Amino acid sequence: MGIRLGDNQYGKAEVRLVHVNRETPVHSIKDINYSSQLRGDLESVHTEGDNCKCLPTDTQKNTVYAKAKEWGGVGAIEDFALRMARHFVDEHDYVYGARQEVEEYAWERISTGKGAHDHSFVRTGAEVRNTVVTKDGDKEWVVSGFSGLTVLKSTGSEFHGYPKTKYTTLAETDDRILATDVTARWRYIGTGVDWDKTYESVKALALEAFAETHSLALQQTLYAMGKAVLEAHPEIAEIKFSMPNNHHFLVDLSPFGLDNPNEVFFAADRPYGKIEAVVERDDAPEAGRAWETVPGFV
Amino acid sequence: MGIRLGDNQYGKAEVRLVHVNRETPVHSIKDINYSSQLRGDLESVHTEGDNCKCLPTDTQKNTVYAKAKEWGGVGAIEDFALRMARHFVDEHDYVYGARQEVEEYAWERISTGKGAHDHSFVRTGAEVRNTVVTKDGDKEWVVSGFSGLTVLKSTGSEFHGYPKTKYTTLAETDDRILATDVTARWRYIGTGVDWDKTYESVKALALEAFAETHSLALQQTLYAMGKAVLEAHPEIAEIKFSMPNNHHFLVDLSPFGLDNPNEVFFAADRPYGKIEAVVERDDAPEAGRAWETVPGFV
Amino acid sequence: MGIRLGDNQYGKAEVRLVHVNRETPVHSIKDINYSSQLRGDLESVHTEGDNCKCLPTDTQKNTVYAKAKEWGGVGAIEDFALRMARHFVDEHDYVYGARQEVEEYAWERISTGKGAHDHSFVRTGAEVRNTVVTKDGDKEWVVSGFSGLTVLKSTGSEFHGYPKTKYTTLAETDDRILATDVTARWRYIGTGVDWDKTYESVKALALEAFAETHSLALQQTLYAMGKAVLEAHPEIAEIKFSMPNNHHFLVDLSPFGLDNPNEVFFAADRPYGKIEAVVERDDAPEAGRAWETVPGFV
Amino acid sequence: MGIRLGDNQYGKAEVRLVHVNRETPVHSIKDINYSSQLRGDLESVHTEGDNCKCLPTDTQKNTVYAKAKEWGGVGAIEDFALRMARHFVDEHDYVYGARQEVEEYAWERISTGKGAHDHSFVRTGAEVRNTVVTKDGDKEWVVSGFSGLTVLKSTGSEFHGYPKTKYTTLAETDDRILATDVTARWRYIGTGVDWDKTYESVKALALEAFAETHSLALQQTLYAMGKAVLEAHPEIAEIKFSMPNNHHFLVDLSPFGLDNPNEVFFAADRPYGKIEAVVERDDAPEAGRAWETVPGFV
Repeated sequence: MGIRLGDNQYGKAEVRLVHVNRETPVHSIKDINYSSQLRGDLESVHTEGDNCKCLPTDTQKNTVYAKAKEWGGVGAIEDFALRMARHFVDEHDYVYGARQEVEEYAWERISTGKGAHDHSFVRTGAEVRNTVVTKDGDKEWVVSGFSGLTVLKSTGSEFHGYPKTKYTTLAETDDRILATDVTARWRYIGTGVDWDKTYESVKALALEAFAETHSLALQQTLYAMGKAVLEAHPEIAEIKFSMPNNHHFLVDLSPFGLDNPNEVFFAADRPYGKIEAVVERDDAPEAGRAWETVPGFV
Repeated sequence: MGIRLGDNQYGKAEVRLVHVNRETPVHSIKDINYSSQLRGDLESVHTEGDNCKCLPTDTQKNTVYAKAKEWGGVGAIEDFALRMARHFVDEHDYVYGARQEVEEYAWERISTGKGAHDHSFVRTGAEVRNTVVTKDGDKEWVVSGFSGLTVLKSTGSEFHGYPKTKYTTLAETDDRILATDVTARWRYIGTGVDWDKTYESVKALALEAFAETHSLALQQTLYAMGKAVLEAHPEIAEIKFSMPNNHHFLVDLSPFGLDNPNEVFFAADRPYGKIEAVVERDDAPEAGRAWETVPGFV
Repeated sequence: MGIRLGDNQYGKAEVRLVHVNRETPVHSIKDINYSSQLRGDLESVHTEGDNCKCLPTDTQKNTVYAKAKEWGGVGAIEDFALRMARHFVDEHDYVYGARQEVEEYAWERISTGKGAHDHSFVRTGAEVRNTVVTKDGDKEWVVSGFSGLTVLKSTGSEFHGYPKTKYTTLAETDDRILATDVTARWRYIGTGVDWDKTYESVKALALEAFAETHSLALQQTLYAMGKAVLEAHPEIAEIKFSMPNNHHFLVDLSPFGLDNPNEVFFAADRPYGKIEAVVERDDAPEAGRAWETVPGFV
Repeated sequence: MGIRLGDNQYGKAEVRLVHVNRETPVHSIKDINYSSQLRGDLESVHTEGDNCKCLPTDTQKNTVYAKAKEWGGVGAIEDFALRMARHFVDEHDYVYGARQEVEEYAWERISTGKGAHDHSFVRTGAEVRNTVVTKDGDKEWVVSGFSGLTVLKSTGSEFHGYPKTKYTTLAETDDRILATDVTARWRYIGTGVDWDKTYESVKALALEAFAETHSLALQQTLYAMGKAVLEAHPEIAEIKFSMPNNHHFLVDLSPFGLDNPNEVFFAADRPYGKIEAVVERDDAPEAGRAWETVPGFV
């Protein structure tokens, strides 16, 4: 019997970088939050505090900033993370693998009387785009996604036909509000992808499927969203959703002599339903380590 | 010498209400966070626990939901808050005053292949609209505003000419990123206002002034924003801004043999500059109690 | 009619400073969050971007760090903020006033088999101590307080005897859970105070009064807490509390054939009651500008 | 080629429950946040919206509250979650597995002049205890942990001997502040454990190892913490830590003519180092599905 080091990784998290493209007077900006984690020959750091194979997290941070300049900008976050992962693994023989995560915040130009402004921007939208690139020796996986896309249907949602038990009190309904904050992550097949175009398409498809599905269960809506994405995108192997059921309870106004035909709702905080599922291709390549360190669902 | 009760108020905070207008198959929704506070003859509640003049906070909550039905919806949050304040003060002889605060979250219809969806919505934009209505007997004040409008200029901002002291290390600059999260609150003159139209105009004017001002100091930008609003809106007595200076520091890439001509920036969290000021009409009516309980600036 | 600059202030917010006292091998640490705001002759900064009387926020930050060294540490946060305010106002003829806010986070030594460790610490407690010092020319005010002190009584709380109206549905109770997060701020008379000792005493008195008061209303508990503090501390002119009523609703277990004699509760998030009041001396000196920029209550 | 449902689970998250033990006038309270997730025969819910095998999340919530009464309280959160998992899987033939997570918030009695109060409590400590119980048919795994234990060493930490590359700027140091927020999760062998006693011991051992380790790298400190836990607790198979390196940068006071011998530090927010590792027994039983849905590390 002995005690030993198991899996491990280390790096610099949440390196905030804004890159300004000033090639023309019409600037563009890229606003990201970069987290680099490396894996390698790290036994002796843990057991003895010997740092000889430990590329400092400070150096990882410096590299992020330097590469944004060397490479003339950030580009698609998936490309940037892949290039960074390759840099870390290929250029340091004591680094065997990397996990590179990027969040991107969206901005649009401020509208003025003279049109869209050249160099003034306003943060827009609620959802945050992200990617997690995992590299293990020669193998590479890209999982991209978004969080914080909040949607609501004011009708077109039912819930009934569920098992009744000793602990059931819920009434069946054929008309309720359905609301959720969509967190989605999808795994790409390969790395030769038009990342930006695919991202916009996945988001639009998920939104449209949410809107168009007459829902008998949030699970059904989720599955329809995933199916729409996979049917349109052969470059995606699987997509995972984590979707709270943000309950909107009809307020009982009868004590005040008022009816309430699905008009006035209390938007509750906690507890909330939580629906998580994968929609996948039956012939998708193995996931390998793609999901290993993706924050927590299914 | 004695100890006594001073100013006080009580109520129900953060009543989350979603109202669905179902008059036609094309629904519309209103999503608000309502906080009611009342003032009155409350000495004995505090000193003896005698609740005979204490309209329960639970009743205040019920009233918010009931009135949204009785009045056929919420309408402009300023109108809703004014009507609620009048209800509480006019209908209960032991209630002398009210502070009613409303936040509103913006939604837009989901776009589908067939156009904007009838009853499916997505949360949009970052800023939250709000109002604080204060009523003291017959007197009424309306302070409206927004928070969380995040903006950035990638050039067109300088900072120099400041006093140099023993503790100065900052270098002067004629080109920096200027970024802030705008919190604005403005006081209306009277209550006969087209609230929704004015709100949209104030936001647009503030954004445009931010964009168009070549900035020598964030204070100058702030003042230009306020001036633009007051010039266009005689119904506004004064406007207050609280604006952090969200520092973006140019990364020193020279150790890596790279120049950095205002391209790669580190977006810092803390500390941040904080600029707060009022822009006002010199002939505005007195503010009275309008600002007394408005969260914290200047 | 004209448009002009009104009240204003500016500075550096949330300067995070940790000071280590290393005079002996038994270290002590002070962990604060410092926000400096200055007022002065700032018309031209706003209207023209002329910074000649604008001590940079960066310089204010530098000064906080430098003074912590010059003065041999931080000491009581009230003393530190007063000295800083005096430095800014006395040493710069274009600075007329200052608002200096400090938050302090509490740490205790880590217990080991050999006793309390010399230089290893763990963050402790939930409440954050704070102070706001306001200086206007020669006048000085100190308002100190804490936030985030979460307390609960599992019995000894009733609520009944309130007015019944058309919108009342709440049932009266003679036994409920009473729970709140205490935010307190008190104004000192003068500046010759043993700050640390008074702070500990105020907190202990507030806690004890919360515990010992058989409560007929949260307002009654609040008043008892304030009275206990003022009776023991002649150096305090008034104390303000902002206390949510964190509702704990008894769960109806009767559908499952179970009674629930005040044992199983649902701790709700929103909405919550909100009780705010001042307890004051009737002969206290005027508050002046002491409360002007204290975040938001009553 | 086809599209299909992959892994999935659903349930009710963040059921807030406070249980009061009133057996004697000296009450005790248990304050938890419960999240139930179930797995089963859920194909048709997703593809057709057929809920006939979908135990509603509302029923899961009801069950949590009812069982807290039926079982005479909550007890150790691990026991409660295990019993709940067994209830869900054993009593419903369409439920094949369960993931039950519990967070627990700590309270202590309020001290008064007469001693610890019978029924008045104050929230204490910063760390939150938690457990994730996973049940898959007959198999059961228990992973327990805590988050938010914030610690700091004011000396006794060095960092040097790391690889120098083109992107290195960090200076080596033999004396720095070491600070982190410890998140720990450990997997138990079996379910016959004195959960509460073990929890307290693990926390104490981790704290003591943090304090006593003269650190050459945060990784070394982490490993020492894990080793101390595993050596004392044969019932623990492995322990995972996720520990940010909360950087405290020495402030350069030389521009002001001041030295700074490790006294005045700037506590930075982002970026931060992030160190994650497993310390494990070499003869531990397989982890099975224990870690599958544990939020995100290594």
